[in-house]
Amino acid sequence: MTDYDVVVIGGGPGGYAAALYGASAGLRIALVEGDAVGGTCLNRGCIPAKAQLQTAEVFRTANHAGDFGINPVDGSGTFSADWGKVSERTTGIVDRLVGGLSGLLKRRKVEVIRGRGVLTPNGEVSVDGQAIAAKSVIIATGSEPKSIPGFEADGERVVTSDHSTRSGTLPKRVAVIGGGVIGAEFASVFTDVGVDTTLLEALPGGVLPIGPDQELARTLAKSLAARGTKIHADARVSPPERTANGMVLAYETPTGSDKIEVDQVLVAIGRAPVSAGLGFAEAGVEVTDRGFVVVDTNTMATSRPGIYAIGDVVETPGLAHVAYAEAIVAIKSILGETPVPVDYTRVPWVVYTHPEVAWAGLTEAEAKEAGFEIDIHKYKFSGNGRAMIIGETDGLVKIVAQKNGPILGVHLIGPWASELLAENYLAVNWQALPEEVGAFIHPHPSLSEAVGEAMLAFTGRSLHG
Amino acid sequence: MTDYDVVVIGGGPGGYAAALYGASAGLRIALVEGDAVGGTCLNRGCIPAKAQLQTAEVFRTANHAGDFGINPVDGSGTFSADWGKVSERTTGIVDRLVGGLSGLLKRRKVEVIRGRGVLTPNGEVSVDGQAIAAKSVIIATGSEPKSIPGFEADGERVVTSDHSTRSGTLPKRVAVIGGGVIGAEFASVFTDVGVDTTLLEALPGGVLPIGPDQELARTLAKSLAARGTKIHADARVSPPERTANGMVLAYETPTGSDKIEVDQVLVAIGRAPVSAGLGFAEAGVEVTDRGFVVVDTNTMATSRPGIYAIGDVVETPGLAHVAYAEAIVAIKSILGETPVPVDYTRVPWVVYTHPEVAWAGLTEAEAKEAGFEIDIHKYKFSGNGRAMIIGETDGLVKIVAQKNGPILGVHLIGPWASELLAENYLAVNWQALPEEVGAFIHPHPSLSEAVGEAMLAFTGRSLHG
Repeated sequence: MTDYDVVVIGGGPGGYAAALYGASAGLRIALVEGDAVGGTCLNRGCIPAKAQLQTAEVFRTANHAGDFGINPVDGSGTFSADWGKVSERTTGIVDRLVGGLSGLLKRRKVEVIRGRGVLTPNGEVSVDGQAIAAKSVIIATGSEPKSIPGFEADGERVVTSDHSTRSGTLPKRVAVIGGGVIGAEFASVFTDVGVDTTLLEALPGGVLPIGPDQELARTLAKSLAARGTKIHADARVSPPERTANGMVLAYETPTGSDKIEVDQVLVAIGRAPVSAGLGFAEAGVEVTDRGFVVVDTNTMATSRPGIYAIGDVVETPGLAHVAYAEAIVAIKSILGETPVPVDYTRVPWVVYTHPEVAWAGLTEAEAKEAGFEIDIHKYKFSGNGRAMIIGETDGLVKIVAQKNGPILGVHLIGPWASELLAENYLAVNWQALPEEVGAFIHPHPSLSEAVGEAMLAFTGRSLHG
Repeated sequence: MTDYDVVVIGGGPGGYAAALYGASAGLRIALVEGDAVGGTCLNRGCIPAKAQLQTAEVFRTANHAGDFGINPVDGSGTFSADWGKVSERTTGIVDRLVGGLSGLLKRRKVEVIRGRGVLTPNGEVSVDGQAIAAKSVIIATGSEPKSIPGFEADGERVVTSDHSTRSGTLPKRVAVIGGGVIGAEFASVFTDVGVDTTLLEALPGGVLPIGPDQELARTLAKSLAARGTKIHADARVSPPERTANGMVLAYETPTGSDKIEVDQVLVAIGRAPVSAGLGFAEAGVEVTDRGFVVVDTNTMATSRPGIYAIGDVVETPGLAHVAYAEAIVAIKSILGETPVPVDYTRVPWVVYTHPEVAWAGLTEAEAKEAGFEIDIHKYKFSGNGRAMIIGETDGLVKIVAQKNGPILGVHLIGPWASELLAENYLAVNWQALPEEVGAFIHPHPSLSEAVGEAMLAFTGRSLHG
């Protein structure tokens, strides 16, 4: 007899979601995790990163309170960021969430087994030599920051997001290597709290060169540059050389070569799946050359029957909420239900920079490449009353639709784009017509009116458009 | 020959939306307005009110920056609100919006006629004795604050929202008469910027006694009270008596009678339609005893052919965005198209207090009263990661659905409820099943995940729920 219906390897978003969802469906579940539950996202990824981004938001607000008629009763009304305190607050939030998650797991009778879970050749899970019997296995081992030769992280001078998300100190001068989501978010935080920030990206464009509609990427790059981020696109960087005062970093761009002195280098060139040395191949679980576990995304089943894989260890968008959705697909497969597979072309994407970037569905370039005849309408937040009221008028809403057809993609950059996305995501996934969404009423005044205006414009008529 | 296809009386949200939408559909339009375009909403209503609410938000953030590790470089880091400056900022925003609106009207060739438009008995519009010939007329004369005998506004001691939205000074002690949307919003602002605030409401409940699900109203009342608003429900107030130091206000509640001394009384007991003395009845436009113009909401047509009415002057929800929607219905009727009438039971409602309250569709009580067998699921923001990150964990999402059926109502109180509403509004108006919305992916971490969790709970399973 098996002890569990499912044993899950890895306690990050994919793993804990599988455990919680599975347990709420009545399955007996064991969750194997060597570290704190919550994984990278909760402990050294999205959550602490967003806590720092919120700190930067408070910093901006406090330092510009005078613009709103909020004046200091004494002193200059100027603020600085105490990164030790910021780190304490972050730890407080992480601890609360880890505590909440642990409590939920306990209440749902999920057995959390401390240790490193590996697959045995017969397809069982072994933790420190102890086999755990279960009918099904879910691999949710996640990912870790990639490194570059010569840029090995020491946690102080050369760091990754693992360090920067939980650091109690702030560098004076930082070079961020990589302008993707993670690099852009850190550049945004560092710049806004007064760190001398240089962003070096190997691809043209410099900021978010892959993923979002490039009109959004350019808008973000412009905003960061205006606030002081030094952005170098198309840059080839040589390994840092330590000096008495910090590190010197030489780089080449198409316009020439240069060097900068910094105190810290943050390597943010992407993440790689955690799959080596865990017995996957030996157990008959197929793994790609780049270390991703191969799955049928209709069920999240691996090549070995009874073993499933979800989250960053599979080659789908590396997003916590995609891991959640995959966890539900895997559990439904295990239950013998018919899961609705994740439509990876329409998942929500958010970059929590200032301003925020959020999108779902096809970009303008992707829609054209796919052969669609398209219509595009945009609305700038500079025309939106609430954006003026909150003092954040940078950005726009851009809707890509098939000519006389459904919405293909929604693209937002601006205030609270992360939260405005939900409505747009629904519209994309319901394959609604822009005029259907445009006929709906948005509250006045609201940021979401910018969405309504962009949608309404497809009818050839408009209100404030 | 007529000069115009449509003449619109009133340049508020209903009137200017009719003008802009009609003009974008090719109609020749005249807009009659005696004051600045934009009406109450833009000039002395929603827009300046929300600017003050945002000021209160900045005030709270600046004064609590230390909680986020953002410390003053000198001084105590304590702020006070300079209401003269706040008023200047508000004026700047209003001026920008009025300017933008004027520019839009001009670009669309809408003729703005300055003056007071009245109907002549033959159904024409006359402005200062000058008749304006048009095929159709749209009445959009709006509403004005109601007053109570003995509480006549003088603009200084006794005021209405007309004054408070644009005032350059802040009272030290204020009594707000009426706990509806307008009264609650002002109480929220005043309390948060340090004004000694007493809210007196004639109905039980005290705060938002009519409209939202009463669970939300109670949550708001609790939050206001915790921040210092003195709330007296079921209160009968006597007219203020002027004293050397201010005004004394006596009131009775079921628990006894008392009196308070204040510097200002804000009367916020609701709004009444502006329809008297404008020739409506004489022109054959039916008006109710309470002054509302009677319309067929399928077309917004009044009892006189060719004359339509929209916005606060008709007896539908007095919301700017409802006026916009009615403007579109009226213009489509005039164009001979078949408009989709506004579904008044599902329009979005927002109260921009702290925390914000937003809803669409049936409350729990309304759903029960309508005879539905219902299911309810809730999710508190205290369990939401992003709410913790931004430091705003008060509030909840409450979904009311028909048992094994569609969503009937969505009810939110908490951070950015105003913007989170859009997705929920869509779900209510598409009559979606909660499990359909629950199957969708919300970005992590986001406030909108609280909506996803509440929806998912209807499946009998959940993630963080």
